[in-house]
Amino acid sequence: MKIRAATGADHDAIWNIFHETIATGDTYAFDPKMSREEALAYWFRADTHTYVAELDRQSVGEADGFPGTATPSATASKQDRRIAGTYILRPNQSGGGSHVANAAFMVAGSARGQRIGRAMAEHCLDEARRMGFRAMQFNFVVSTNAPAIHLWEQLGFRIVGTLPAAFHHPQKGYVDVYVMYRSLLT
Amino acid sequence: MKIRAATGADHDAIWNIFHETIATGDTYAFDPKMSREEALAYWFRADTHTYVAELDRQSVGEADGFPGTATPSATASKQDRRIAGTYILRPNQSGGGSHVANAAFMVAGSARGQRIGRAMAEHCLDEARRMGFRAMQFNFVVSTNAPAIHLWEQLGFRIVGTLPAAFHHPQKGYVDVYVMYRSLLT
Repeated sequence: MKIRAATGADHDAIWNIFHETIATGDTYAFDPKMSREEALAYWFRADTHTYVAELDRQSVGEADGFPGTATPSATASKQDRRIAGTYILRPNQSGGGSHVANAAFMVAGSARGQRIGRAMAEHCLDEARRMGFRAMQFNFVVSTNAPAIHLWEQLGFRIVGTLPAAFHHPQKGYVDVYVMYRSLLT
Repeated sequence: MKIRAATGADHDAIWNIFHETIATGDTYAFDPKMSREEALAYWFRADTHTYVAELDRQSVGEADGFPGTATPSATASKQDRRIAGTYILRPNQSGGGSHVANAAFMVAGSARGQRIGRAMAEHCLDEARRMGFRAMQFNFVVSTNAPAIHLWEQLGFRIVGTLPAAFHHPQKGYVDVYVMYRSLLT
């Protein structure tokens, strides 16, 4: 797997992952009906660094050949399937708050359980340090998203704030949201 | 004083207050060199309700007449000076987070000490309730901004998070930032 800066050629793959991620409405505070155009505008905003996690060819069975399906669209779809995740990194605020980074991560449903989220997060922390950020903050970690909270805690983040009933979970109703933070100086 | 929805005719007055407020760089996480165009785009964003606090004519001495200065530009400037403050109200997040409001307030330096901030905040809480928001959150209250924190606490907000060293104060260096929150259901 390789983590690299995203390009325009990744838009289809990113939109597929983005749409799939927000459709359930249980982890991100996005409208599940958000359009492709709005999603890509958000994910590629001017102040934002956008990355993708690209699997090796072997991982998605491209060596198998799939004889008879090698139309251009099938090829594009196979290329898209190599993108297993995407993340963004940007300043959480401007001016006097611009030394704190913000980031967001999405992994394709078909690529879960391969530690791609963890790999992207470690890459992200390195990138943020390289860019000179002094800390990283997640503004909106839904308290029912146990795998995410567990991962962030393992990576040195801690809960610095609890927003009471700030998320309306489609199954669980109003649930708390955490603000998570870690210094990048240590 | 009247608090009302802002219009295009208020742009000059709002920009004057906005620019003056961010120029010191000690309360808001905006680049002090933010342009008028960027500021107005932010303050009048599509999802945002924008208001102004307009003083009565008497309050700014318009009854005095100022003979000889009644050129169109002097008149416009006098009109602008009647706008003593401005605030915005919007959803803090989309989707499952859109029941929590966010707001921001700015008072003209020349109008301090007249409880205009408090009047706008009370108006804002009423508007937010009227629109059906269930809570209000301030994401970034600089811990050295004692007058603001005092006012928010008087109005029922409490500190629900502390972001360590998340603001670079021009005189005091890195200082903490508070996340403040209050329910609108009680």
